[in-house]
Amino acid sequence: MILKVKSLKLLAGRPVAILHANTAKKLAIYPGERISIKKHPKSQKIIAIVDIAKGMLKENEAALSSEIINYLKLKERDKIEVSAAPKLLSIYYILEKLKGKTLDYQKIYGIITDIVNNALTEAEIAYFVSAIFINGMTIDETAMLIKAMVENGKKLDIKNVVDKHSIGGIAGNRTTPIIVSICSSTGLVMPKTSSRAITSAAGTADVMEVLTKVEFTSEEIKKIVKKTNACLVWGGALGLAPADDKIIQVERLISLDPEAQLIASILSKKLAVNAKYVLLDIPYGKSAKASSKEDAIRLARKFENLAKFFGLKLKTVLTDGSEPIGNGIGPVLEARDVISVLSRSKDRPLDLEKKALDLSAIILEMTGKAKKGEGLNLAKKILDSKLAYKKFMEIINAQNGSIKNLKNRLISAKFNFKLKAKKNSSVMDIDNKKIAAVARAAGCPADKPAGIYLYVHRGFKVKKDDNLATVYAETKEKLNFAVDLFKKINPIVLK
Amino acid sequence: MILKVKSLKLLAGRPVAILHANTAKKLAIYPGERISIKKHPKSQKIIAIVDIAKGMLKENEAALSSEIINYLKLKERDKIEVSAAPKLLSIYYILEKLKGKTLDYQKIYGIITDIVNNALTEAEIAYFVSAIFINGMTIDETAMLIKAMVENGKKLDIKNVVDKHSIGGIAGNRTTPIIVSICSSTGLVMPKTSSRAITSAAGTADVMEVLTKVEFTSEEIKKIVKKTNACLVWGGALGLAPADDKIIQVERLISLDPEAQLIASILSKKLAVNAKYVLLDIPYGKSAKASSKEDAIRLARKFENLAKFFGLKLKTVLTDGSEPIGNGIGPVLEARDVISVLSRSKDRPLDLEKKALDLSAIILEMTGKAKKGEGLNLAKKILDSKLAYKKFMEIINAQNGSIKNLKNRLISAKFNFKLKAKKNSSVMDIDNKKIAAVARAAGCPADKPAGIYLYVHRGFKVKKDDNLATVYAETKEKLNFAVDLFKKINPIVLK
Repeated sequence: MILKVKSLKLLAGRPVAILHANTAKKLAIYPGERISIKKHPKSQKIIAIVDIAKGMLKENEAALSSEIINYLKLKERDKIEVSAAPKLLSIYYILEKLKGKTLDYQKIYGIITDIVNNALTEAEIAYFVSAIFINGMTIDETAMLIKAMVENGKKLDIKNVVDKHSIGGIAGNRTTPIIVSICSSTGLVMPKTSSRAITSAAGTADVMEVLTKVEFTSEEIKKIVKKTNACLVWGGALGLAPADDKIIQVERLISLDPEAQLIASILSKKLAVNAKYVLLDIPYGKSAKASSKEDAIRLARKFENLAKFFGLKLKTVLTDGSEPIGNGIGPVLEARDVISVLSRSKDRPLDLEKKALDLSAIILEMTGKAKKGEGLNLAKKILDSKLAYKKFMEIINAQNGSIKNLKNRLISAKFNFKLKAKKNSSVMDIDNKKIAAVARAAGCPADKPAGIYLYVHRGFKVKKDDNLATVYAETKEKLNFAVDLFKKINPIVLK
Repeated sequence: MILKVKSLKLLAGRPVAILHANTAKKLAIYPGERISIKKHPKSQKIIAIVDIAKGMLKENEAALSSEIINYLKLKERDKIEVSAAPKLLSIYYILEKLKGKTLDYQKIYGIITDIVNNALTEAEIAYFVSAIFINGMTIDETAMLIKAMVENGKKLDIKNVVDKHSIGGIAGNRTTPIIVSICSSTGLVMPKTSSRAITSAAGTADVMEVLTKVEFTSEEIKKIVKKTNACLVWGGALGLAPADDKIIQVERLISLDPEAQLIASILSKKLAVNAKYVLLDIPYGKSAKASSKEDAIRLARKFENLAKFFGLKLKTVLTDGSEPIGNGIGPVLEARDVISVLSRSKDRPLDLEKKALDLSAIILEMTGKAKKGEGLNLAKKILDSKLAYKKFMEIINAQNGSIKNLKNRLISAKFNFKLKAKKNSSVMDIDNKKIAAVARAAGCPADKPAGIYLYVHRGFKVKKDDNLATVYAETKEKLNFAVDLFKKINPIVLK
């Protein structure tokens, strides 16, 4: 069928064509189905998802998103040929997985390629995620998923990369900048790409953005790493295993996180940054992602088996995830914690320092920078001598930050409220998820100074009217909203 | 956050708001997530799905679909307040079902209400469908699903309704117009609402549309039924159990048809048309929906149990679904078959006639119009005396058709091609799905005269060069496409 182009100037994130209801009926196309479009009389084809409109269009018009206009180099009123597109093969593969079958590499590769090319709709990706979630994936399938994700993306062109990663879920757990600063001081190459917060109060990229620029091209990252051995940047725009980002977007709709996808997500990014050594932190605890030590061990074994498959030197370390780490939760508050540890401030959070040292020690030993049993001493020496602090400032400078302005960037939120103990008691529990929920209610991660400062940890004894936490927010409304939520869900349990 | 309205004049089928990328970032909203919108300073709220654009909008603007503009009575440049919307409760219920839990009525009702109100995205509905497909539903859950679907829709206000339904999947199986004509001749009230083709060559509504109008309001249907005891209309726009239509739309993306949803879909529509008696035809066979007799029996028991729950007098009948029924496949070709049976033409398809008579007999007996064992004789009498033909013409007239024009409406397709036997042989098998695929390739259901005419049925002996089938199409391209497909997938197996 031949139609005339109506340009929408809409970046829909994927090719979308809006057809008149009668036109769609003639093509026997329903909303969400696909059509094939080419410029009349001859051009390449593009597959587009159909929306159906009454009124805004004439029957002989198709309103096209910019993705289509640009790809086919179309102008307003150009003629295009549209036809119902055949079903994608990947849809049949997804259907097989829903029916409980095991997929081979060719099929998984087909699904991932179609996800990366925007050929699959969110609903179709949701079917894939559901199938993985309920039916699970074999280790072989997971390996093929990882391989397909890496091959459908870009790679970082840096050698001998050392990486660390936490599976997440622990509020305030900002060890990465400290570990990278300690380890890269010894000459290790650590181009660390991190994510922004998805469900937490802050990701490492959000925290670093308080202090310096975090968005760079792969070429710029190469230059920064050449200068300083390390970087602490946002990995989101580098095109590393991009299927992962699209799948996560669909998972987020319903807070689903299938284990196979969690593992594939992490390992595909590590392979895409060309990592040779990886230390993987798996915190466990009631409100962590791994809710028991057994869960954490099982997950660690899966990571180790898969890493072997790809020849990746990966060590897992199970850590205490029973409560938040550090004092601050929120981008600015966590940046303060990091700097206070690195600058050896007296009021630095010692739990954060200890965890960063322990993990650094393992990295130094696994890469041969320290002999077995001597990693912790080396890490301490680098931290105490402020070599790590110097390295951190180097990284900030190399990323276009300015260490002279740091104080201005660590400014407090406009409003705050102190929560106090109602009686003499002990801190029994601090729930990671609830703390994150309150911090987000206060404005995290978008409002960088927002968040929570904790005065206590598990086991602390408190007297009546002792401070438990301060909530910070940029507006009174957000402060009230967060404080009300705190009182309602009670993240700090006293007894 | 306060933004200015930019009107899109886009009927997106649901409330959609397009935000500037930076605005979305400030709200910590990702594409596909929801915002709450109200007119500033005060109005009702509406929940909208967010698309994110760069370029077409300023940061302080929001482009809104007509659904939002109309609901909040907005004008271009009006001020609106937007905020991140809390997650819908129904999403947690869907998550529970994905995790294998059983849902109660309140939760199922919540999901169905949000589907009907367009509050759930297609991806979220896909999660629900996947969960039902893989984890199944208990009989209680299915009953609650049916109840929720009926209560979230409109009802037909007609009493003592008799209905028949086939679960579908058999090409050419157009018994409904014949059965309705026979049974309503005895005074039975049969306001038959049918669907259009989804994956088949024609639905009963597509076939009736060849002969008369099929789209009416509930009030108009009431008038038609008052006049003639019956109607044969399209049920799609009546708002009967509308959740079903949206769920089917999402299932269609991936050709999924979970059993619980199939049952709920049929029974909810029957309850919504206020049916008192229902005859349910369950064809079984290799290429039918129920692939074996055991499957058909199991499915029949489920329908019967659920019907009891709702006090519905339902009878199931298992029929031969091993091959297409009648000669024609496609709207016009099936309409011809129906008229040739009703008008007692010599070349009428006797398999279609026999099935229509058998089913009519059961309806006449279950409603007390005939004594046990005498239904078939009564049905035959009504058919042979052309009383049923007269009734069918009455219905066509009442639905604004004209029996004088029938010949013009039953016109042949512009192009055709005869497929012939290559040697002396027997017809071993005729595959329903493959026949439907060829008919659709030829242009069905949009091109009404397109389709396939079958000269043979299973067990027929054929000589070399005997006709097997004629393929009809409105363009040469479609004819060649369909004939090529026929030769490739070979729906008629000879031996």
